[in-house]
Amino acid sequence: MTGQITSTITYEYPLHERVRTYLRLEHLLASLQPEVAVDSCNYTRYFSALFSILDLCERSDVRTDVQKDLDKRRAQLQIWSQHPDVNQQQLALTSERVIHALQAIQPISRVGSALKQDRLLGPIRQRFAMPGGTCNFDLPQLHFWLHQAQEIRDADCQRWWQELSVLLSGLTLELELLRGQSRFRTVTAEAGMLQESTEPLSLLRLQVNKDIPAYPVMSGHKQRFSIRFLRYEPVAGRASYEQNIEVALALCP
Amino acid sequence: MTGQITSTITYEYPLHERVRTYLRLEHLLASLQPEVAVDSCNYTRYFSALFSILDLCERSDVRTDVQKDLDKRRAQLQIWSQHPDVNQQQLALTSERVIHALQAIQPISRVGSALKQDRLLGPIRQRFAMPGGTCNFDLPQLHFWLHQAQEIRDADCQRWWQELSVLLSGLTLELELLRGQSRFRTVTAEAGMLQESTEPLSLLRLQVNKDIPAYPVMSGHKQRFSIRFLRYEPVAGRASYEQNIEVALALCP
Repeated sequence: MTGQITSTITYEYPLHERVRTYLRLEHLLASLQPEVAVDSCNYTRYFSALFSILDLCERSDVRTDVQKDLDKRRAQLQIWSQHPDVNQQQLALTSERVIHALQAIQPISRVGSALKQDRLLGPIRQRFAMPGGTCNFDLPQLHFWLHQAQEIRDADCQRWWQELSVLLSGLTLELELLRGQSRFRTVTAEAGMLQESTEPLSLLRLQVNKDIPAYPVMSGHKQRFSIRFLRYEPVAGRASYEQNIEVALALCP
Repeated sequence: MTGQITSTITYEYPLHERVRTYLRLEHLLASLQPEVAVDSCNYTRYFSALFSILDLCERSDVRTDVQKDLDKRRAQLQIWSQHPDVNQQQLALTSERVIHALQAIQPISRVGSALKQDRLLGPIRQRFAMPGGTCNFDLPQLHFWLHQAQEIRDADCQRWWQELSVLLSGLTLELELLRGQSRFRTVTAEAGMLQESTEPLSLLRLQVNKDIPAYPVMSGHKQRFSIRFLRYEPVAGRASYEQNIEVALALCP
């Protein structure tokens, strides 16, 4: 295997509970992008993501977490701006984005509380976890909605999106800044294993050559992590992949 | 409103627990059609349907139910074949399909038991109900799979489909025959209400003009049902739709 990694798969592993929730939300977010038209083919994906986002926001105070994190970023950028070698223009731009996100998040009280009152979403959410619970006899209103003109569904999706967009934009910015803090470096997972003790970390990022028939299982906590590669064999049993693997690794504090 | 219903929405309501399960399975089945290529955009829909089908098949003995029902159809077709006015060619064709489906179902022991052993499906199923539980750090093997060539995923989906296709084909045939037993007739839901006492029924079917801004809420049991129309107003409160509505209704015994 050569040192050049061309086509890769990126894996990430959160070492903080907070970052874990952010990554889940970011993952779900992709299914809610307003440019995707929701119809009778893809509504499962859409509602599954929407309700999962509401679940996660109900479980932990994501709004406060994002606000605190962005506030730390703001203070950090302020300190950096006094450093002579820094790209002042780039920094001013980032600062502005952070301040804008903070201002937008400030007035939000409870994320998604308006969605709980929504007459269409309420019954769908209730039935959604039931196997086959979105049948037309379970949810005639959903069946009706799916038969309306696309513009009607688009307008509803737009309305629901409005309720979440500010928080999720702030969260996306925080993750962008978190990821931007660290560059990938090439390391070798000897016999498919990699272990390190480090300074406190928030996030591990790993790029693996697509051609390697194995996937990484990561574990760890703030100051120690391990990565083990497992052979991808859907039918046979689970087995370690014990060859040396060159990977790109980024450790985000 | 004229008597001609051009563009309609069809609603169904099962009056038997067994038929209820069949309809749920049929509804889920649409998401598993082998011609749909599973990728990182639509896998939620796919796995959601697959796991829901497994859940339903574990809860009740669908295989035995379908077998019994098709066996009744076979006997019924036998009786009809002695009737002089019947289309013998059509009847022979249907009989053949029923017999073929019965023969295929006979050797199945436990539906989906092979899927429970599947190394890829097992962990996905376990995580699937968690909000955002399909993140790459939760399921690196899924992330890996979604980055493989489409042919690899197609082959896996084909393999999983094989496990369910016989049962689901039988079930689809039974529903086709059940629905075929009754024709739609035009009736008026006066002030948005329709109630009837009838001979024992398995399934209600209703076609409603697409332009009516209301959806039917159906309830009932074998010998009595009621249909009530509710105004579709996503933001405001729930309200009856109290105008006369001409609908097409089919009662399937």
